[in-house]
Amino acid sequence: MNLSALGEDKLLARLLPMLPRRGAVIVGAGDDCAVVAAPKRGKLQLLKTDCIVEGIHFTTKSSPISVGWKAMVRPLSDFAAMSGVPQFALVTMIVPAERTVDWIRRIYRGLEKAARAFDVAIVGGETSGIEGPAVISVSVTGVVEKGRWVGRGGGKADDELFVTGRLGGSLRVRHLKFTPRITESRWLTKNFRVHAMMDLSDGLGADLPRLARASGVGFTVDETALPLNRGCTAEQAISDGEDYELLFAISPKDSRSLPARWRKKFPRIPLTRIGRLNPQSAIHNPKLQPGYVHFKQR
Amino acid sequence: MNLSALGEDKLLARLLPMLPRRGAVIVGAGDDCAVVAAPKRGKLQLLKTDCIVEGIHFTTKSSPISVGWKAMVRPLSDFAAMSGVPQFALVTMIVPAERTVDWIRRIYRGLEKAARAFDVAIVGGETSGIEGPAVISVSVTGVVEKGRWVGRGGGKADDELFVTGRLGGSLRVRHLKFTPRITESRWLTKNFRVHAMMDLSDGLGADLPRLARASGVGFTVDETALPLNRGCTAEQAISDGEDYELLFAISPKDSRSLPARWRKKFPRIPLTRIGRLNPQSAIHNPKLQPGYVHFKQR
Repeated sequence: MNLSALGEDKLLARLLPMLPRRGAVIVGAGDDCAVVAAPKRGKLQLLKTDCIVEGIHFTTKSSPISVGWKAMVRPLSDFAAMSGVPQFALVTMIVPAERTVDWIRRIYRGLEKAARAFDVAIVGGETSGIEGPAVISVSVTGVVEKGRWVGRGGGKADDELFVTGRLGGSLRVRHLKFTPRITESRWLTKNFRVHAMMDLSDGLGADLPRLARASGVGFTVDETALPLNRGCTAEQAISDGEDYELLFAISPKDSRSLPARWRKKFPRIPLTRIGRLNPQSAIHNPKLQPGYVHFKQR
Repeated sequence: MNLSALGEDKLLARLLPMLPRRGAVIVGAGDDCAVVAAPKRGKLQLLKTDCIVEGIHFTTKSSPISVGWKAMVRPLSDFAAMSGVPQFALVTMIVPAERTVDWIRRIYRGLEKAARAFDVAIVGGETSGIEGPAVISVSVTGVVEKGRWVGRGGGKADDELFVTGRLGGSLRVRHLKFTPRITESRWLTKNFRVHAMMDLSDGLGADLPRLARASGVGFTVDETALPLNRGCTAEQAISDGEDYELLFAISPKDSRSLPARWRKKFPRIPLTRIGRLNPQSAIHNPKLQPGYVHFKQR
């Protein structure tokens, strides 16, 4: 059966009972808005929306469960980047009328799997038709303690730069299956003063300059130190994108104890010092940065 | 210049300084998530996402400013439906690479105009390409007092049913220019006990059965009483959709003083009693509902 034969109300009625709930959900999907409890005192709210588009972020041949997973974990990776705790998600599925209900149901299974894995409640669903590729848009709200959120703009000269995991070659498979680094990010900010942090979605070569620019500093990177995925070159690690690893800046003093404590806590996830921030802006002094031609200078 | 030539970072950098801010916005667009102040005590949070798709909700010939307006006011109409106060919006623009930056800028102008009109801060923007029609997805968060939100499920037998404004014929122009009934909805819940409420997006014939079903009751409608837009028939008022007027249920006792007080407060907006809820479910007893064949029986 395809979507146009079933109708939106019936589709949502079939899908929504599968969705996870939390005590904080007062009205979930099915009314005009979702109604949820407000954050506790001392918390700030985080908001993020992201989308994936067929033909760009996935293909018609991608596993629908993986596509649903990716649609949910992409905005969750932005919560990791700020050291926030995601809580509630709204999902918009825009699909051509001839797509089967089974395909949509499997997309939802992937969305739900990711939501459960990170204790997120899907509190609303919207669907629309389209004469073109499918689009899945996911908006997430959550919280972070007032003193604990980490933006891109707090980096200081001489901060050490670290990345989690390995970089490059993600587009073969891993971009559909990655795990957002929420646990790791929360541990980092519980135990260290992280000055600036972001997730690597467009590749180190595009993202690190954004962090440096937001912090008003430059950077140097030791390309030979980059943690590479199997079969990848340093250039791929810099340019491929969709790694969804954390990039963060931390003072030299704090960084001394970090590697050993990290290894003990997360023995299976590499943590690599890849360079440092410096007072010279790489953006304004491109000549000071020979060898970093891969890094975007804008 | 088109989108692919300019690039996402530069586009957002050009657009975002125009966006309205509020004191509550700690980090707006440009970081991984938006960071905003949490609601005050005694408030609940409301969440809503909606999208409009080219070829379905607007055409390539629609005025981009009106398209942007519509993309923002559609979710705001759902806030009106719950009697909530919208606060923060996230916008996702999915546009083919060949679309001009001027078109996108005018879409944003419409989004911004609607956001300002209802004191909403656009705190995040995302863009993506697509090989197909443009899509604009808007997510909105806001608040409502704990005792004040109105769902679809609180209607009681013998409640009177009212609609604001006039119905039918919206697709000619009005669907791109409508005003969400937030002010009216807030006034209603401040002054009356509204049992159930929703906004009419799919047409009275589809939406009223949803309200009745959620409330576990039936309904009768006086088709001759329906407030019609100029040149429309009762059938159009029931079936056309995209009216974005409020439909609500209120006790017979409360409804006595409502029309006169409404006329005094909102002299230019009609308020019409169109029928009532009743204990017999129209869904289970279709034979009791002769004449209401336009109303969806599912």
